[in-house]
Amino acid sequence: MRRALLMGRFQPFHLGHLQVVRDILGEFPQLIVAVGSATFNYLEKSPFTAGERIWMIHEALAESGLDMSRIYITAYPNIENNAAWAAHLKSLLPPFHVAFTGNALPHILLKEAGIEVRPLEMINRELYCASEIRRRMLEGEDWESLVPPAVARIIKEIKGVERLKFIVRGESDPLHW
Amino acid sequence: MRRALLMGRFQPFHLGHLQVVRDILGEFPQLIVAVGSATFNYLEKSPFTAGERIWMIHEALAESGLDMSRIYITAYPNIENNAAWAAHLKSLLPPFHVAFTGNALPHILLKEAGIEVRPLEMINRELYCASEIRRRMLEGEDWESLVPPAVARIIKEIKGVERLKFIVRGESDPLHW
Amino acid sequence: MRRALLMGRFQPFHLGHLQVVRDILGEFPQLIVAVGSATFNYLEKSPFTAGERIWMIHEALAESGLDMSRIYITAYPNIENNAAWAAHLKSLLPPFHVAFTGNALPHILLKEAGIEVRPLEMINRELYCASEIRRRMLEGEDWESLVPPAVARIIKEIKGVERLKFIVRGESDPLHW
Amino acid sequence: MRRALLMGRFQPFHLGHLQVVRDILGEFPQLIVAVGSATFNYLEKSPFTAGERIWMIHEALAESGLDMSRIYITAYPNIENNAAWAAHLKSLLPPFHVAFTGNALPHILLKEAGIEVRPLEMINRELYCASEIRRRMLEGEDWESLVPPAVARIIKEIKGVERLKFIVRGESDPLHW
Amino acid sequence: MRRALLMGRFQPFHLGHLQVVRDILGEFPQLIVAVGSATFNYLEKSPFTAGERIWMIHEALAESGLDMSRIYITAYPNIENNAAWAAHLKSLLPPFHVAFTGNALPHILLKEAGIEVRPLEMINRELYCASEIRRRMLEGEDWESLVPPAVARIIKEIKGVERLKFIVRGESDPLHW
Amino acid sequence: MRRALLMGRFQPFHLGHLQVVRDILGEFPQLIVAVGSATFNYLEKSPFTAGERIWMIHEALAESGLDMSRIYITAYPNIENNAAWAAHLKSLLPPFHVAFTGNALPHILLKEAGIEVRPLEMINRELYCASEIRRRMLEGEDWESLVPPAVARIIKEIKGVERLKFIVRGESDPLHW
Repeated sequence: MRRALLMGRFQPFHLGHLQVVRDILGEFPQLIVAVGSATFNYLEKSPFTAGERIWMIHEALAESGLDMSRIYITAYPNIENNAAWAAHLKSLLPPFHVAFTGNALPHILLKEAGIEVRPLEMINRELYCASEIRRRMLEGEDWESLVPPAVARIIKEIKGVERLKFIVRGESDPLHW
Repeated sequence: MRRALLMGRFQPFHLGHLQVVRDILGEFPQLIVAVGSATFNYLEKSPFTAGERIWMIHEALAESGLDMSRIYITAYPNIENNAAWAAHLKSLLPPFHVAFTGNALPHILLKEAGIEVRPLEMINRELYCASEIRRRMLEGEDWESLVPPAVARIIKEIKGVERLKFIVRGESDPLHW
Repeated sequence: MRRALLMGRFQPFHLGHLQVVRDILGEFPQLIVAVGSATFNYLEKSPFTAGERIWMIHEALAESGLDMSRIYITAYPNIENNAAWAAHLKSLLPPFHVAFTGNALPHILLKEAGIEVRPLEMINRELYCASEIRRRMLEGEDWESLVPPAVARIIKEIKGVERLKFIVRGESDPLHW
Repeated sequence: MRRALLMGRFQPFHLGHLQVVRDILGEFPQLIVAVGSATFNYLEKSPFTAGERIWMIHEALAESGLDMSRIYITAYPNIENNAAWAAHLKSLLPPFHVAFTGNALPHILLKEAGIEVRPLEMINRELYCASEIRRRMLEGEDWESLVPPAVARIIKEIKGVERLKFIVRGESDPLHW
Repeated sequence: MRRALLMGRFQPFHLGHLQVVRDILGEFPQLIVAVGSATFNYLEKSPFTAGERIWMIHEALAESGLDMSRIYITAYPNIENNAAWAAHLKSLLPPFHVAFTGNALPHILLKEAGIEVRPLEMINRELYCASEIRRRMLEGEDWESLVPPAVARIIKEIKGVERLKFIVRGESDPLHW
Repeated sequence: MRRALLMGRFQPFHLGHLQVVRDILGEFPQLIVAVGSATFNYLEKSPFTAGERIWMIHEALAESGLDMSRIYITAYPNIENNAAWAAHLKSLLPPFHVAFTGNALPHILLKEAGIEVRPLEMINRELYCASEIRRRMLEGEDWESLVPPAVARIIKEIKGVERLKFIVRGESDPLHW
């Protein structure tokens, strides 16, 4: 059975990601959504824990009526040695045959490990973009319309916007200590 | 929504585990199956990678007709500091309210972190036991009847029994090098 | 017995820190001074080793006539996973009931772990500030008047200013190698 | 000022250790008590966290009427590379001139790093011995008489004996999971 | 036998390095070429793996007609704790008596560990410079004339210039994922 | 150019290893001798540092009159994730086409990574065996005749036998601390 891989940090998972998931499931019988940078959290560019991100993605895909028996969602930690990264990733995931990524480094590392890599065909990239969503959270603008309802609900439940504002304040403070 | 956690190394996932999953889903709306010792593999007591174990569990639960939208399956690496383990685990999983474990160390660590822990009510513990299954693999006895069909199929596909035999031979060899 | 925690990198410990220590000891029977980033040293922002920082703090508090039987001084290494940081910290320190910190990230992490956190009421923050002290060391200005005598004496004994100048020169050099 | 180092895991600190501390303070103006294996805890041979061990030692020495301004108590994590261990240790401690240890590996590593090492002159080694104390805890025999009163009080406060029994049960259980 | 150490990241090894090797071998019977940042690769400033760098250096020195029985070439990983770095390095290399480095941090760390350190007398530093060579690779200018023929040949064989361009593109892309 | 890999811990390098090196160089133009467990040292089964082992091997091969321009000698650290080990190893070594190993685990891991693996044809395996040599060192029997002269000379120079005896004594001592 052919299985596709979709990698990302998903800080947070948004409607652009959801569209990509739908597209891939139109072509492949199974999909692995792999949440990267698993141990990074409570940081300006990585505010949510891996567990929270798995939770958001699972609930978003389930509420969209997708067949969850065709979908794997799991997280993987980073490693320092890029040249061993593809093997590290493969050890943590079910076998996959095509990887989708919009980033150059995973692209080259997977390709050199003999894996077929395809670029993401993502709609409206400037809008459906995690850094744009975090910017809107920080500036009090609308961000809920850019993410699936389950993601918006969970971020509110965990007080994610307050967390992000708190973190950013810390990082921009002079470090007296 | 109340969510239960079932932890284990699942080397491999067997019919005793499957029964526990069914029992928990009879009581809780959602279940997280968390695969421990994620980075240990190709070892006598841990022959399968985390990815292979996620794959086996997913396929076994799906073929059993369970509602996969109610189930999370993910893996987590070990850490050295036991006293920080519960917080590490929580950061890698969606929120959970009750944890099921048959092991004393996770039991005490989760309990001291304020999490409700329940013992496993596992049928026929001598038989449905991962170390017994690995023993049978090594000695050429029947093991397939102790695991869900999907698990047996995947272990054959990845030549898991040959792998285990190869590993064990290595570990018992005198280490000339 | 109620015990307070004062965290910092203490690069170096200065008169602002000393004032905070006095204030806390006026309210709490015991105080833990915890030296963070324990394994970072010989860096522009972290020139002193954890051992040197423990040494400076101990001697500064002792020379101030404080009752050392009420004070703990210890160091702790960083970890990558912020969401597990509070548990990591707790495992390395005696029990504490209130934490004092001037930084947003420790603040939110300790608070979410159920620990009471209070901001620092530090006098003359622009002056009594470790980065200002390091700047003065580099530019040959007076810095001794901003730290307790024991700290100035130890920094001279270990040739700390020369070390800092050497390190900074290295970091600004083009990296030919 | 000459400073001595006393290293150990202190699982737990006992009256033999206390005697050694007194002896060293009779000869040296200052003493560093360094708690090793800082990140190991909730294990059969290492039941107590580094923070708990620092706490026990501090309270035991303070209740003995020793001058705490002459004593440092801190913890250090292990590293894999033994040949770099002495340098690692030195970076985490104030300068020291003589190290006391009853163990051969630290002895040789410190000596090869140019540090004077002296063996421990410990009274009644079979009795005042951490593994004997843990054995007595597990078998319900008297152990309190082998440790300073503060250590006994803290171990009771943290329910240390129950913890140890729980851990040991876990380790001797067959690992079904 | 007196042995010199030449450290660097060698991203890549160039004619300036080669000249230094010749100079050192004119004075010392043996030389260790130690490749630092061994686990960093596929990065803009560190495009080549440690293995590739060892390969380039070995072939470049051999083709230059140098006596390879007088030369060691090996790699070492970084560690976090600078104050333990010299001991870490020493454990990974044959004994050496003088270290050559053009960088301030290794200089101070080795010197404080009691090792004689000498600055590099490198010809034409602006030209024979690894960052200049990488810049030329990226901009399509001549870089081959700045490295030994074997280095140019290996970089072509591993498609190193294409790799570097790919990596840089990735790092400058907005991080949508 | 075809390049062979010979892996081992080489604790210490002996005449059996030397014979294998000669045999491989009779068939392959180049050979990589890769020293494993690079950060393990001062242990009963791993008494020598990686640097000492590289030194012994280099001097032994050079004194045997082998052409050192055909030989690479380097060390690599262990990693936890066996399934990523082959990729980790490849990143630290020049390209190789055939690997020689007498151990089952490296054998299966390299084979599954697509590398040709061949068993060692080692003469007199009971005699030319590192654990037998260490046993003889401990018991005061002849061991020098089992290793190349350069290895015996270096072990004497670093007082390796005394070190091994010291370490073993430590490990068999009851751990009072």
